[in-house]
Parts: sequence; structure tokens; C-alpha cells
Amino acid sequence: MTRPNLQVALDHSDLPSAIEAVKAVGDIVDIIEVGTILILQAGDQAVKCIRAMYPGKTIVADTKCADAGGTVAENVQKAGADWTTVICCATIPTMKAAAEKISDVQVELYGDWTYEQAELWLAAGITQVIYHQSRDALLAGETWGDKDLTKVQKLIDMGFRVSVTGGLTVETLALFKGMSIYTFITGRGITAAKNPEQAATEFLNELNRIWGA
Amino acid sequence: MTRPNLQVALDHSDLPSAIEAVKAVGDIVDIIEVGTILILQAGDQAVKCIRAMYPGKTIVADTKCADAGGTVAENVQKAGADWTTVICCATIPTMKAAAEKISDVQVELYGDWTYEQAELWLAAGITQVIYHQSRDALLAGETWGDKDLTKVQKLIDMGFRVSVTGGLTVETLALFKGMSIYTFITGRGITAAKNPEQAATEFLNELNRIWGA
Repeated sequence: MTRPNLQVALDHSDLPSAIEAVKAVGDIVDIIEVGTILILQAGDQAVKCIRAMYPGKTIVADTKCADAGGTVAENVQKAGADWTTVICCATIPTMKAAAEKISDVQVELYGDWTYEQAELWLAAGITQVIYHQSRDALLAGETWGDKDLTKVQKLIDMGFRVSVTGGLTVETLALFKGMSIYTFITGRGITAAKNPEQAATEFLNELNRIWGA
Repeated sequence: MTRPNLQVALDHSDLPSAIEAVKAVGDIVDIIEVGTILILQAGDQAVKCIRAMYPGKTIVADTKCADAGGTVAENVQKAGADWTTVICCATIPTMKAAAEKISDVQVELYGDWTYEQAELWLAAGITQVIYHQSRDALLAGETWGDKDLTKVQKLIDMGFRVSVTGGLTVETLALFKGMSIYTFITGRGITAAKNPEQAATEFLNELNRIWGA
């Protein structure tokens, strides 16, 4: 079973803080995410700066695009992003328009999406989804459970490359043992750690331990 | 029946173009929207610049927020926005978190939302929705029809202040005659007109003609 990717999400409200954070861990992780909060605050400068720092890494611009997919995807692609995200309630034309302008598109799963919709995404050629424990839901006391793992496995069985995110710790990775997770995404789990470089390394070591080096 | 508001959406991919566009019509319209494309490109500078130009106008930061509602709303509020938008598939905790940090929140209706969800938004204190003909859906040949007008009227009857947007022209405003629309939103219908100032004035005159000065 392939070792899942490790993705760091930069969800800072200003670019200098994000650059400081990524400098410590960018060489360790597989994928760098320019988070929604950051891109809404710093604009495409955020993507451009992080691309300049890490020319060889996969960079995701987490726009959670809901409309004007072609323009949004083209803009972040020009700024240096490899992938962008679309929100699950976007229309299929929006998703297709985005997919035409950038290497890959990921559907962010929030709220009441359905497997029928997911079949439509696959039919439109979209093969990446992000299963998301909402930050606000986590703050409201919700957490990972069998209900989540069942949904994630079903999405994998449908043929999606599935990223998971939301409140992940090194300890919670073992919950996913035996599942072909494509990517684990964590933000403050790495960037807000006392020693972010050590935290990123511990995540990576645990992925290697569970899924094989 | 109160005259609906006129809102101009700035969906430019760079700040100078947006500023040029708004300078021509900002004094005519009621509400200025810093569009999603613009804010993803220029960040909070876009909100700050337009607030500096129009200290007395209602300004919407169209973040289409799906998560981290508190942080996103607080950030755009600090930059000078009166309102921000959340996407309809965001969780209720996300919507509530956003609503706590800014004067008002509008739910953007995309894809397969339900009236049951809409009741939950009302129960959470969210009273503005934006009924949206997706730009990409319009490009794919879809248009305004009875199906849309029925949904809009039902939302009004539920107690929402309803904004409508997507492919509106001066001629299409009459379709909504007799309906208590809160706001008509147009972007390129004004900003891409040969004479944007004249286009904005024509929209406003038609609103006054139909709904009374």
C-alpha cells in the first residue's frame, strides 16, 4: 500500500507568518497548501511567494471555488499552483471549467453532499476529493469516528484519491490503518507545534511506520 | 413595495482594473461587492482600497466562506467590509461563527440546497440569501425562468431578504415585477458596458420605474 502524502496547510491571516511557517517544514512535507484564509488575505502573492520558495513541490491553492471556475483556476495556475479546490455544491460546469485550466482539481466535501453527486464528479473527470472535518464542527465538539471512516472508504472504493483533514494528530493516523488514503492534511497540527520541523517529521515517520517506507 | 438595492460586483482579476471600474459607478449603486475572483487575487487590500474610496457605502466581501467562518469574517470586517458571504453547503457552526464577527452574513445558493437547510439558516439568525444563476451554468446555456422565480418567491415568503444575481440585464428586471427582491446584483452588466455610469443609471431608473422611486 502506497505511503499517503503529507500536506501542510498554511492558514495564516498574513503572508509573513505563512512564509515563516513553511520555511521550517516545506522540505519535509510532500504538498504545500496555500489555505483559504491566507489566499483571501494575501491574494495570489501568497501562491507566487511559496512557489518561489519551493519550485519542486506540489502546491495547492485552496480557493474552495464555487463559481467562475475557469477564471479562478487560471489565475492560481498562473501564480504557480498545481492544483486548486472546488466546493462540493459547485455545479458540474464550474468544476469542469476549473479542471480545464489547471493540472488537477479537488472537491472539498462540506455539509450534505451525496454519493450520487460524487458519481457526477467522477463522470466529469474529477478524481480527487477532500474529506473534511469542518474546523467549526470540531470546535463545536465533533470528532473523527466510524461514520467518517466508512464514508472515506466508500469514496476510495468509488475510485477517488481521497485526502482527509480536520483535527488530525500523529495519534489519529492509526485510525486509518489499512485504508488507501491519498493525503493527510494538517495545518496547525504542524505549524502551531512547539517544534514544527519535529512535528512534520513525526507525522512522516508515523505514515512510514503504518503504510511502509 | 420598497425599491430593491442595486449592487455592483467587482469580479476583476486585478485591483487596478476593479478600482477603475468602481470609480465610475460607486456613487450610483447602493452596495459594492468585492467579488470572489478579486479578493482571491488581491486579498484584503481590495476591501481596504474600496472602503477608502467609499466610506459611506455598504461593502460586501464575497468570500463564499465554507469553513473557518469566524476568522474569515473577522478578517474582512477588519479590512472594512460590512457583510460577507458563506456558501450554502457550509455547516451551521461555520455560518454562526461568521455571523458573530461581522454585521451581516449572506448565504450563497449553489447546487442542491434544500428548504429544510434554509429553515436551519433562519433558525441560526441568518436572514439574507443570494439566489445565484451560476456564471458557468449561464455559459452552458441555462437562463432565468419560472423555476427560478418560484424558488425566489418561496425564499422571500420564508422571511429571507433575497438578492438575485447572474446574467441580469435592464430588460430582465421586469421579470421580477411584484416581487420583494432585496437586491439585484450585476457585475459585467455594468462594469463591462460601453458606458458603465450610464448602465448603472439605467438599472437604477428601471428599478425606480418598476418598484417606485
